[in-house]
Amino acid sequence: MPYQLRKNFKLFSLNSNPELAEEIASILGCQLGKNSITHFSDGEIQINIEESVRGAEVYVIQSTSQPGTEHVMELLIMIDALKRASADSITVVMPYYGYARQDRKASSREPITAKLVANMLVKAGANHIITMDFHAPQVQGFFNIPVDQLLGITVLSEHFTNKKLEDAIVVAPDNGGLSRARRLADYLDVPIGFIDKRRMQPGEPETVNIVGDIQGKNAIIIVDIVDTATTISAAANELVENGAKAVYACCTHAVLSGDAIQRIENSALTELVVTNTIRVPQEKRSPKITILSVAPLLAEAIEHVHNEKPVSPLFE
Amino acid sequence: MPYQLRKNFKLFSLNSNPELAEEIASILGCQLGKNSITHFSDGEIQINIEESVRGAEVYVIQSTSQPGTEHVMELLIMIDALKRASADSITVVMPYYGYARQDRKASSREPITAKLVANMLVKAGANHIITMDFHAPQVQGFFNIPVDQLLGITVLSEHFTNKKLEDAIVVAPDNGGLSRARRLADYLDVPIGFIDKRRMQPGEPETVNIVGDIQGKNAIIIVDIVDTATTISAAANELVENGAKAVYACCTHAVLSGDAIQRIENSALTELVVTNTIRVPQEKRSPKITILSVAPLLAEAIEHVHNEKPVSPLFE
Amino acid sequence: MPYQLRKNFKLFSLNSNPELAEEIASILGCQLGKNSITHFSDGEIQINIEESVRGAEVYVIQSTSQPGTEHVMELLIMIDALKRASADSITVVMPYYGYARQDRKASSREPITAKLVANMLVKAGANHIITMDFHAPQVQGFFNIPVDQLLGITVLSEHFTNKKLEDAIVVAPDNGGLSRARRLADYLDVPIGFIDKRRMQPGEPETVNIVGDIQGKNAIIIVDIVDTATTISAAANELVENGAKAVYACCTHAVLSGDAIQRIENSALTELVVTNTIRVPQEKRSPKITILSVAPLLAEAIEHVHNEKPVSPLFE
Amino acid sequence: MPYQLRKNFKLFSLNSNPELAEEIASILGCQLGKNSITHFSDGEIQINIEESVRGAEVYVIQSTSQPGTEHVMELLIMIDALKRASADSITVVMPYYGYARQDRKASSREPITAKLVANMLVKAGANHIITMDFHAPQVQGFFNIPVDQLLGITVLSEHFTNKKLEDAIVVAPDNGGLSRARRLADYLDVPIGFIDKRRMQPGEPETVNIVGDIQGKNAIIIVDIVDTATTISAAANELVENGAKAVYACCTHAVLSGDAIQRIENSALTELVVTNTIRVPQEKRSPKITILSVAPLLAEAIEHVHNEKPVSPLFE
Amino acid sequence: MPYQLRKNFKLFSLNSNPELAEEIASILGCQLGKNSITHFSDGEIQINIEESVRGAEVYVIQSTSQPGTEHVMELLIMIDALKRASADSITVVMPYYGYARQDRKASSREPITAKLVANMLVKAGANHIITMDFHAPQVQGFFNIPVDQLLGITVLSEHFTNKKLEDAIVVAPDNGGLSRARRLADYLDVPIGFIDKRRMQPGEPETVNIVGDIQGKNAIIIVDIVDTATTISAAANELVENGAKAVYACCTHAVLSGDAIQRIENSALTELVVTNTIRVPQEKRSPKITILSVAPLLAEAIEHVHNEKPVSPLFE
Amino acid sequence: MPYQLRKNFKLFSLNSNPELAEEIASILGCQLGKNSITHFSDGEIQINIEESVRGAEVYVIQSTSQPGTEHVMELLIMIDALKRASADSITVVMPYYGYARQDRKASSREPITAKLVANMLVKAGANHIITMDFHAPQVQGFFNIPVDQLLGITVLSEHFTNKKLEDAIVVAPDNGGLSRARRLADYLDVPIGFIDKRRMQPGEPETVNIVGDIQGKNAIIIVDIVDTATTISAAANELVENGAKAVYACCTHAVLSGDAIQRIENSALTELVVTNTIRVPQEKRSPKITILSVAPLLAEAIEHVHNEKPVSPLFE
Repeated sequence: MPYQLRKNFKLFSLNSNPELAEEIASILGCQLGKNSITHFSDGEIQINIEESVRGAEVYVIQSTSQPGTEHVMELLIMIDALKRASADSITVVMPYYGYARQDRKASSREPITAKLVANMLVKAGANHIITMDFHAPQVQGFFNIPVDQLLGITVLSEHFTNKKLEDAIVVAPDNGGLSRARRLADYLDVPIGFIDKRRMQPGEPETVNIVGDIQGKNAIIIVDIVDTATTISAAANELVENGAKAVYACCTHAVLSGDAIQRIENSALTELVVTNTIRVPQEKRSPKITILSVAPLLAEAIEHVHNEKPVSPLFE
Repeated sequence: MPYQLRKNFKLFSLNSNPELAEEIASILGCQLGKNSITHFSDGEIQINIEESVRGAEVYVIQSTSQPGTEHVMELLIMIDALKRASADSITVVMPYYGYARQDRKASSREPITAKLVANMLVKAGANHIITMDFHAPQVQGFFNIPVDQLLGITVLSEHFTNKKLEDAIVVAPDNGGLSRARRLADYLDVPIGFIDKRRMQPGEPETVNIVGDIQGKNAIIIVDIVDTATTISAAANELVENGAKAVYACCTHAVLSGDAIQRIENSALTELVVTNTIRVPQEKRSPKITILSVAPLLAEAIEHVHNEKPVSPLFE
Repeated sequence: MPYQLRKNFKLFSLNSNPELAEEIASILGCQLGKNSITHFSDGEIQINIEESVRGAEVYVIQSTSQPGTEHVMELLIMIDALKRASADSITVVMPYYGYARQDRKASSREPITAKLVANMLVKAGANHIITMDFHAPQVQGFFNIPVDQLLGITVLSEHFTNKKLEDAIVVAPDNGGLSRARRLADYLDVPIGFIDKRRMQPGEPETVNIVGDIQGKNAIIIVDIVDTATTISAAANELVENGAKAVYACCTHAVLSGDAIQRIENSALTELVVTNTIRVPQEKRSPKITILSVAPLLAEAIEHVHNEKPVSPLFE
Repeated sequence: MPYQLRKNFKLFSLNSNPELAEEIASILGCQLGKNSITHFSDGEIQINIEESVRGAEVYVIQSTSQPGTEHVMELLIMIDALKRASADSITVVMPYYGYARQDRKASSREPITAKLVANMLVKAGANHIITMDFHAPQVQGFFNIPVDQLLGITVLSEHFTNKKLEDAIVVAPDNGGLSRARRLADYLDVPIGFIDKRRMQPGEPETVNIVGDIQGKNAIIIVDIVDTATTISAAANELVENGAKAVYACCTHAVLSGDAIQRIENSALTELVVTNTIRVPQEKRSPKITILSVAPLLAEAIEHVHNEKPVSPLFE
Repeated sequence: MPYQLRKNFKLFSLNSNPELAEEIASILGCQLGKNSITHFSDGEIQINIEESVRGAEVYVIQSTSQPGTEHVMELLIMIDALKRASADSITVVMPYYGYARQDRKASSREPITAKLVANMLVKAGANHIITMDFHAPQVQGFFNIPVDQLLGITVLSEHFTNKKLEDAIVVAPDNGGLSRARRLADYLDVPIGFIDKRRMQPGEPETVNIVGDIQGKNAIIIVDIVDTATTISAAANELVENGAKAVYACCTHAVLSGDAIQRIENSALTELVVTNTIRVPQEKRSPKITILSVAPLLAEAIEHVHNEKPVSPLFE
Repeated sequence: MPYQLRKNFKLFSLNSNPELAEEIASILGCQLGKNSITHFSDGEIQINIEESVRGAEVYVIQSTSQPGTEHVMELLIMIDALKRASADSITVVMPYYGYARQDRKASSREPITAKLVANMLVKAGANHIITMDFHAPQVQGFFNIPVDQLLGITVLSEHFTNKKLEDAIVVAPDNGGLSRARRLADYLDVPIGFIDKRRMQPGEPETVNIVGDIQGKNAIIIVDIVDTATTISAAANELVENGAKAVYACCTHAVLSGDAIQRIENSALTELVVTNTIRVPQEKRSPKITILSVAPLLAEAIEHVHNEKPVSPLFE
């Protein structure tokens, strides 16, 4: 194993993504710590840590993916237990930071749940966060503790580079994601476009306007999260209807809730490339979906943090 | 209506117990505030407060009963939204404080989840707690904000007083609940006993020993929580087998999880008296179960807090 | 005067924008509180509050505009003095929240100064923030206290509506501002476009690509902040070179540092519309620059907060 | 010496129990750190730490036993001095946690002094608590820092095991201590009982009812604290009057205030077994009182914490 | 009574200075709140608040004078109880702030107990401090809550003004108190001097040097605290030996510990003028000691704070 | 090099005093860490840390000297960046702690800016402070983190000892600095005096009265800070006019603002001895001013802290 871990290193997984945790442990050449997460008869979460963590530098892997509330609570309870068991430090490895889209008051009297969760993590006792692709980079500032944010684009772009698509164009599926599209286009050295939608009159259907030249091109849509897949499916269809040769899509976080799979399969999309920050269960697998692993990236980040080496090379 | 409420008084309910909230509002002669609690497609909780709370003295009614994690998160998000919407104060009315039994480290490396939840409530922005029957009274000390704890025994004892049972004895079903039994016995002016269990040798069955004279008596079991009903059902059977004439049981919090209803119906219990701190859904109703309402008690507590009158008369 | 203020209302101004403060006071029909801000011989800031604030609900108007550091410190010292002088509450009215662009770690080992300033304001004693157009809406989540964010677009869009430009198109000058452009286009009911730039090879000049149809149109550029004016000046030139009939620009915050004025005057811009969230001194005035006042909007917000009326109507 | 201590280990004692501290130091094979605790002429406490603690892992031994207020203040001042002198960590070893019985609001407007003291310790700078037998285990949850609670029952039960009493029964002297009695009975493999008291009518004398079969038995009373000895003395007399052959009592914390010694000597008690968590001064010694030392247990706990070994084996 | 108090005003006294509290209540025209402070058998402090304080603006009068530790703890416990009983605000009126002289690290590894006490008061729940003559004015900065510091010199100087001493000179008894002496001299319009002491060689006696012209004059010594009276007694003797006609002394805080009274009576002092910030018990009264009351000053300060009037007129 | 530094030691300088930082680094035998401090076009401070600090024990050298506000902000931003970059600990080395004279409320409604700055440093993330000569020693108590305060008098007194002035007397230039004068006089073994000033009537000129015998003597004035030099220049003139042979002055912190240099050169002062806690730029140099370096003292303090040796020998 190339990785050197000190004796007081401990890696635990909670319930959201045990396969990813196992893969990270395997790359690091260590065992996952022993713990169990069960439920009392009334559904309350019960966590037992089954080995000493006194003085340990603990890393806990948990995406707060669906069921997000349950996974947040598991994480908070685990942190509480670790702190009371005299862990020396607690680094929370959240490949997917859920509740991330509620990161501002979009209208009056809304909560900012992404900040609430940040406050809860810190109050419970977290000392450090390692995560991937916040919905907005400003979420780093919700914390006063160190946050290392890795980017899925390093994994995703490599996939498309290897694919050697000709006549490619990166397309943002709406007004908000143009910076992300610009970044991928830079990696791939191709032009960009975006899909503009508006409603001319209340009640009228939305007008779709594709800005940028997509005629005969291989369009690559990039977003941070694919949830219901409504946006990317519609975008794919619109691009094909408007002359694109084929449409690919990619994202870091494959939430894939509701009828997402059906929608993707029924759409004009050729391929959707996702990572495993969120566990993709068997029933959500589809021939159209390619899953790339972020375990090597996260393992390296953990090792760098543990051995006090800069993490910056991993995302620059 | 006898109750006077000031203009800035607002009462909201979340999802755990809307009937109780409606009953409290009705007693107080006010409307529940308008808010909606829905879920995004991926299950994340979305809360909208649909009327201004700026400068308001807000009371939020929520038991953190099953699903406890979901109800805790609803409450935290609501508090976050209220605080950001400039509520003047936020009083959390928790008829049932869930996760209450995880109130100490019973073995190594356990969390103290009841304290974690207390910290979360305060960090989110709660200013005051009104609750009923903590599992241990020391949980009051988990908070640095004012906590008003009401007792179900005032409602439960009245029921048995009205019943005029002859030859009654209060029985604690295990070693821990003797103080509570003593208190009910004082209200009813009857003797007490308890059921002692131990295992003589590892592997052997538990020996049951009924301490106190129950021959031909009407035994009344009191506990704070009935969850799976295993303890009270077994206790009822043992009491009847050992000579009790009939066995009644009562509790403040009717968790009634798993096969609780079946267990109660199959047991020697004559009646189980509970309150509605936790909503008892239709499928958990049983002819053996009597439900008493704590709405009058909670309404009066809210009114006293709102009008800065002492709450002490309500539990002394 | 239509506005009713209670006796304990106090409005103070610091040094950044006394004209705006006076205008707000005049609309509210009150006097500014008496205070002086001077410097000791070594440049340290000295603040004297020259009237009692005991029990008062205090509003302090200060943009942390250039010199930003000085204005932040003035504000912190004022808050400290108010708190120690027993003010009942301190609402900070920051028409422009400086250091706003340092709101995330764009590269390794960067500070998040916008969060640092937020922490300082709260630690010093601020209870509430009223501001306009954060650079990113997520900055609201840097605070755990209530934040009311007003939007300059309500003032700016009215200007263009009144202007009745024909054949208008809103253009985002780079990849990041498309959502803002979309919002203005909705107000004006016109299409949108954006300017895409990229560097094909390191060392080569940047390629400019205008996405959207601007031929013969009146282009309106919208950004939140105009600082050196490099972006909007270049955009204006590029739009005109590529066939736009005329180019207008607008922003909420007129930082206008360095050679901004010269750059604007030398550019193809027909008009730059700004607000007075930041004081525009005489030497930065130009015939090309139109200044709209946000005083009515801020005065109304203050009055709503003071009288506990919802602020939402002001930005919805 | 079997114990390995690192160079930065420091052990200090304050005034409450220097003999216990010396014994612990001797077991650990180290010297107590040099410090002096004196009083100014007006009685204010003055603490001098007479050796460097910069970077040290400091353990401070102090029971907050009588005079409890004085001993709490000594401890707080010591922690303040250690923190300001750059100690790396401060572990408070409190064999007896005073003010422990004020751990809930038993009636209206009571303080929760046990929580107040917890808050003071943490605010002053304590990082970790090692203690024995909280009055209620929930007091662990008064802290957000790690708490290791050892149990006197391990020492006390060994004494009775060695004694090989025949026909023993463990008796709880009132309604509250049945769980503790159950635990000792498990260690000794004997039955349990308890003494029930109630007042039939206001003004009438209390009726005593011994629940459980004590005829001709050796009764062992267990409580956590013996303070005035009123409860255990009365219990002993009642047990003997009701047929017990002999009565023994044991407790972890020997507060022994007021006329406790006289009461014990005049009672039917054969022996009271206590530990030295609280220093028992010469004038409180009695032939009836056996004092067991907890120094080996505490020394081992300190060593385990220092060497980051699990503490759980010490109380399981 | 000229003072108007609102209904929610409550004034409580603790044990340190009930006479002063009664006098303040009498001036304010109100009753002291009902509470009792007793001790458990083991000396732990027990506080009962015997009337509702829900929603009240509470003022608690307590000097942390001898026994200082006990009085600090009484105060902390009272604040805890008030906070938990839902008092709206808690203003601590400390005529004498004890532990005040430990306000800096005078040598290595010293505590800063005055800061520790400040932290404890705030952590317990104090919202506001009213006090008199901190030992150093910087102690105000130990707090982040409002502190109103009144000065005994207003009372003391009036006494000497009325006395119309001829040929007076104010003398600082050591190097530290010259600013205070200057202030009194300004009030009385007389010159100042001071007593300089130094030890020429280690082991040699201290040399006393009176700086300033005291020949045939009435010297007035001023200090903030008279504790053992060693300094002022020696100073008085030295002044008389060096030609002063008579020596008067005055202070705000009459700690008078140890042999202070004897020392004063045996000294050349003609009169010592003190205030009653600290209760002077019968056994510490002396014909040489004149006691002035600060009750009118404190009553006025409380009324100003309560009615949100500036306190500044009281000390300017 | 005599100094041993561990691998994780990092020393950074900000803008206030790079020469001093270089000198300290040179004594310690290490390189200053790479960072840049620039300004955005609008003057906002931009800090880049150009090497990894993950896990490092970081020391940041910054006097908050003129421009004090700018230097405070640089320091806060640097601390924020270091904390977010996972520095293990952050020790702030402030040779001069600016805003130090605003350390109490001298009149109503004043801020306590020295406390505000202390709060900001701690909130930003500072773990430890090393400083020299606070204006008042009580400022140590503004912090709850360790503060090591060194004293310039050790450097200054050595200068005068080497000078072997005959017939010397130390003179405090006003009422406040007598303790400091006493300390220097002890080092030099000479007598002390002070200059007393007062205004007999409002409007009349101030009367100057020199207390102590200065005839034909070499007077040495000592203060902590020389700012405008008004006080020491006037004092020097008065001393010479009243018979002093020559007048020397010394201070730790050479603020030297406004016309200080001119005033010193035009005064009767023979020499002003200062240290380089504050950088003395070329235009403030004068033949009358001698600058002593505190770099050896600070370097030794840093090394002691780093190697966990007591710092006390450096100031005792």
